[in-house]
Amino acid sequence: MRLRHKPWAKDFIQKHSEYVLTSVPNDTTWQDIFQNDQPLYVEVGTGKGKFLDNMSVKYPHINFVGIEKFESVLVTGVQRALDTQPDNLKFIHSDVNHLLDFFQEGEVDRLFINFTDPWPKKRHEKRRLTYKTFLELYQQVLRPDGEIHMKTDNQGLFEYSIESMSQFGMKLKNISLDLHRSNIEENVMTEYEEKFSEKGERIYRLEATFPRK
Amino acid sequence: MRLRHKPWAKDFIQKHSEYVLTSVPNDTTWQDIFQNDQPLYVEVGTGKGKFLDNMSVKYPHINFVGIEKFESVLVTGVQRALDTQPDNLKFIHSDVNHLLDFFQEGEVDRLFINFTDPWPKKRHEKRRLTYKTFLELYQQVLRPDGEIHMKTDNQGLFEYSIESMSQFGMKLKNISLDLHRSNIEENVMTEYEEKFSEKGERIYRLEATFPRK
Ligand SMILES: C[S@@+](CC[C@H](N)C(=O)[O-])C[C@H]1O[C@@H](n2cnc3c(N)ncnc32)[C@H](O)[C@@H]1O
Ligand SMILES: C[S@@+](CC[C@H](N)C(=O)[O-])C[C@H]1O[C@@H](n2cnc3c(N)ncnc32)[C@H](O)[C@@H]1O
Repeated sequence: MRLRHKPWAKDFIQKHSEYVLTSVPNDTTWQDIFQNDQPLYVEVGTGKGKFLDNMSVKYPHINFVGIEKFESVLVTGVQRALDTQPDNLKFIHSDVNHLLDFFQEGEVDRLFINFTDPWPKKRHEKRRLTYKTFLELYQQVLRPDGEIHMKTDNQGLFEYSIESMSQFGMKLKNISLDLHRSNIEENVMTEYEEKFSEKGERIYRLEATFPRK
Repeated sequence: MRLRHKPWAKDFIQKHSEYVLTSVPNDTTWQDIFQNDQPLYVEVGTGKGKFLDNMSVKYPHINFVGIEKFESVLVTGVQRALDTQPDNLKFIHSDVNHLLDFFQEGEVDRLFINFTDPWPKKRHEKRRLTYKTFLELYQQVLRPDGEIHMKTDNQGLFEYSIESMSQFGMKLKNISLDLHRSNIEENVMTEYEEKFSEKGERIYRLEATFPRK
């Protein structure tokens, strides 16, 4: 994600707590926040929020929450939300490492990891959003049969993620090694997906569930 | 595998029981057959046996056994063996379905599945050599931490195999989604691999182990 520094972003985010949260009080659920009991789908590393924006329009009976650590990209999603006023979409400004501060155990129905940073160097492995410490966090917030849906253009990250999830005991299904030349219905593109698939690059995709504890 | 009917193949195989077996007596181990206690590596669907021929030269301290159901392709491997007289290579003329007739429980140290028929139609799923009934057979003959090494050019079969192995509880590692453009040392090509990689097609590869029983 190219970062243009936006000095006003911090202020902007603080002013628009109706769309972007920086904390959630203990014991507050997302059912409280959305004031309904729709399913809850979360995207980690949501960037400018385009995927969730499209998803929230297409699936009005699902609540969507995107987490992003950089204010300067997140503001674009917040601006779009202020424009279109969805009532099933919110953002969190935070690092995914703090996931447990924002969600109750088993509260999340599905978790999306889209085009996350590949961190190709072995010594940066721990930063990859499919490293085992992140999988542990996801396992805690997801309901027992909740699914992780992952997409990426990055071959190395995809190889790594299959291995990491598999070694964690997760089960994989609906794998595509070339999503845009497969039989897919229902695919909603992310911002990065549009960029890479326009260039003709392969998009990799999988779904995964955790073992029963 | 293109099949040219070779009416003499059946006879030829029967005459060369020093290199190709059609049965193994109960309680006979491959240590008995090879008359040593080297590790045992098996290839299912070995075709003309080129991979095992190269492997057996490169790794003289490992015993190799290839299983193939069609006499007319297998004879090529047998002819090559008669030429070079390896003492660590044998073939089995049989369907992989009969694996348990040829190996003791836990006797096999590693099992190769190379460029096996993809059987793309859903109704032929049971014929794919990574269908769960085959995985059950492999689990029985492999030692507990024995590895399956798989290579294929076929995207659909590879997607299917990751899912099938994962759903079986197997753990995956050393995945490559483009073997010939990865950092691989040690790769020994199969006949099909040479053909497909010359055309510039991607070769997929994985290693997998079974869950502890
Ligand atoms: C390459 S962008 C992809 C954005 C979007 N998901 C898409 O597909 O278009 C990855 C985003 O993930 C964010 N990200 C990476 N690691 C993160 C972390 N640990 N916590 C929060 N956000 C993170 C980055 O800041 C960046 O905006
Ligand atoms: C496409 S060829 C590949 C040969 C070789 N492994 C290679 O990579 O060059 C697949 C071979 O597997 C054999 N095969 C497929 N299913 C089999 C089964 N159930 N039992 C024995 N052989 C089988 C076929 O007869 C064929 O010779």
